[in-house]
Amino acid sequence: MSVIRNVLIWDSERVDAEYGDIAIDDAGSISSITPPNEASGDTLFDGHGRALAMPGLVNAHTHVSMTLLRGLGEELPLMEWLKTRIFPVEDRLTAAHIRSGAELAMLEMIAGGVTCFADMYFFMKEVADAVITSGMRAALCRGLPGDDQSKLDENIALAKEFNGREGRITVQLGPHAPYTVPRDALKRISKAAHEHNIGVHFHWLETKGELEMFKNEYKIAPVDYLEDAGLLDVHELLLAHSVWFPEEELHRVKRDNVTLVHCPKSNLKLGSGYAPVKEMIDADVNVALGTDGAASNNRLDIWDEMRTCALMHKGYRTDPTIASARDVLKMATVNGARGLGFKNTGLIRERYTADIAIVNLDRPQYVGCDRTNVPEFVVYAGSSRDVTATVVSGRLLYKDGEYLTLDPQEIIKTASRHRTEIIDR
Amino acid sequence: MSVIRNVLIWDSERVDAEYGDIAIDDAGSISSITPPNEASGDTLFDGHGRALAMPGLVNAHTHVSMTLLRGLGEELPLMEWLKTRIFPVEDRLTAAHIRSGAELAMLEMIAGGVTCFADMYFFMKEVADAVITSGMRAALCRGLPGDDQSKLDENIALAKEFNGREGRITVQLGPHAPYTVPRDALKRISKAAHEHNIGVHFHWLETKGELEMFKNEYKIAPVDYLEDAGLLDVHELLLAHSVWFPEEELHRVKRDNVTLVHCPKSNLKLGSGYAPVKEMIDADVNVALGTDGAASNNRLDIWDEMRTCALMHKGYRTDPTIASARDVLKMATVNGARGLGFKNTGLIRERYTADIAIVNLDRPQYVGCDRTNVPEFVVYAGSSRDVTATVVSGRLLYKDGEYLTLDPQEIIKTASRHRTEIIDR
Repeated sequence: MSVIRNVLIWDSERVDAEYGDIAIDDAGSISSITPPNEASGDTLFDGHGRALAMPGLVNAHTHVSMTLLRGLGEELPLMEWLKTRIFPVEDRLTAAHIRSGAELAMLEMIAGGVTCFADMYFFMKEVADAVITSGMRAALCRGLPGDDQSKLDENIALAKEFNGREGRITVQLGPHAPYTVPRDALKRISKAAHEHNIGVHFHWLETKGELEMFKNEYKIAPVDYLEDAGLLDVHELLLAHSVWFPEEELHRVKRDNVTLVHCPKSNLKLGSGYAPVKEMIDADVNVALGTDGAASNNRLDIWDEMRTCALMHKGYRTDPTIASARDVLKMATVNGARGLGFKNTGLIRERYTADIAIVNLDRPQYVGCDRTNVPEFVVYAGSSRDVTATVVSGRLLYKDGEYLTLDPQEIIKTASRHRTEIIDR
Repeated sequence: MSVIRNVLIWDSERVDAEYGDIAIDDAGSISSITPPNEASGDTLFDGHGRALAMPGLVNAHTHVSMTLLRGLGEELPLMEWLKTRIFPVEDRLTAAHIRSGAELAMLEMIAGGVTCFADMYFFMKEVADAVITSGMRAALCRGLPGDDQSKLDENIALAKEFNGREGRITVQLGPHAPYTVPRDALKRISKAAHEHNIGVHFHWLETKGELEMFKNEYKIAPVDYLEDAGLLDVHELLLAHSVWFPEEELHRVKRDNVTLVHCPKSNLKLGSGYAPVKEMIDADVNVALGTDGAASNNRLDIWDEMRTCALMHKGYRTDPTIASARDVLKMATVNGARGLGFKNTGLIRERYTADIAIVNLDRPQYVGCDRTNVPEFVVYAGSSRDVTATVVSGRLLYKDGEYLTLDPQEIIKTASRHRTEIIDR
């Protein structure tokens, strides 16, 4: 038994935070929450009443290994950027590159209190191995562009090998996007997801052009297209971006297995549009937050996404009540965990996994933060800089600037070498 | 003579960064820039080739002591927020509160590489004293709402006492806004600015309602109103917010003494609108960046403002070329310094003041950062967390998490006590 002691505890099922101890059993689940300094067990972390324990943050859509491509072709229009800078470099990526890019991403995420992420890319066995080593939690899929049975087989093999591994990995199938995957291929992918009882992670309506494609070419409502393919009732369905998700279709997606992943900064940087977040929340849809890859963000920082989400919609709709701090913190924690197929994750309560971000409140920005206003301080005044420890399944991955499962100097050195290998100047 | 050794040096007059040493004379000015490890003198900081030296960041519009009001009345409409939560608390603020709120703000800004700020509030002698102690650089004014000769006298007395002090303080006059200051009073303020040869710091066209007021009530073009009051040729004129600055008036403001201060996050949070930043830059107007007060942001973090500025306009106008990283970094450094009336500040070159933010590049996010892409990495991938040292006039104010001029524990303790005094729950 280990204990996170004397911390202010908040999760999205609480109105006010409370001071207490969090006791964690040997399987990495929360066994009890007691008043401060009452739990017995080894001290994993002592907050001395000046630290906040909140659920670990969830990055519900990313491509971690794109950290190696960060900063390539800034400020170019989307298609020029993809075709002249990103795709040619992606063609050169090897398994070793994918591994070091993934590890580099994990350094950044862990230091920012991210405990869990959903990834779509290739050489995903490398990413899975890095997840196992790092101690993080992740939902993985092999990106499936076009109609390629061998890639689908590879994705299914990934699921067989890693789905459920250590209770920390789920595997989805990863059809790339409705404009790159033929309808028949999508149906085969959906059928395979049903057969193997796994989820699907899909780019969905990121640009206005896609919505127009459904109207003018496919001549079917987007949600009907999903239903026809059998995707609306797979084990879990992650619809990344969903910027142009039609309001009138929101009632068709069920909270228990469908998640729309809002990617605020990527959508702004690429000029994709403003997702109807207010309407999603009003319709009680499960909405999570994602960074997208580091090439279009360029950070893997969920604090940034929370703050940007909370501000961009207020500004765009000139309504200060949209995307409240409480809403976005829920999106960034329990909604994300649910979306990625992890049960009993994303809240701080008994029998939930001990995935916890610990925040140092003894900093200038938190003067005035008390039991009643934790989400507002975290979202508007806080930043990833305030994370003092990151815990997954009761295991410390990071504390006071030190990584406990990864070697940052070695990873940065290797990634720097890989970067020069793949970029020609 | 002291030396910042072996750092990558960038400022907005360079296309590419270069490795070198920065030698600083005893008056706090840069005396030479040499190749790495060639300058002689005491080592102030050694970057070992893995740190970036860039000009200190400038927060060109804020109300520092509002850190004590942070988080009050979140997510309320503007007028309700001001009238029910902010104004009643401001009425209770004493000189001691202003002092601790200012010090709290300085802790936050210094740790984020901010070396210089422009402040408008009251009990400004307290703020000036805190500036002197902290070692920061600042442009100060007494906020002047209404028509109150005693407040104007107080502002003039502030200028007499502090303008030019230690080469680190300028004083402006602070007419609050065109909707709170009668036209006659504004003319008297302008006349006083000319008489004492000092600048003016003015809230300008923050909301659409103000623009409509000029059209429907004042029946004069905003820029003609400024000109008629004699404000366009005061020593320096800071026009904070300028969200609704008419495009056709941009050619009327001169680069050498007028600065428009864009406040990206405050404008989003309060739903004020989108400043025409592209047009301002195209018109070669001097545009700087500001946080506004911590009650409407809620951070005093210029890295956040740079990133938000670079993303919000791309997203809103769906154009990835607007507000380039190079443009926003210029706004956040030399443009701000010029706007606040400081000569030879905001660049890293001989005879400029040694106001420098030092950034640790040995972090996961900077893999791939090299001489050619510093602004892009700083703006899109960086954050205030990366600041490892802050230098003003050649003096270290902060290094590796330690403050060298302020006592953070004492300030946080005092500010926390003051916070409870002024807030009634």
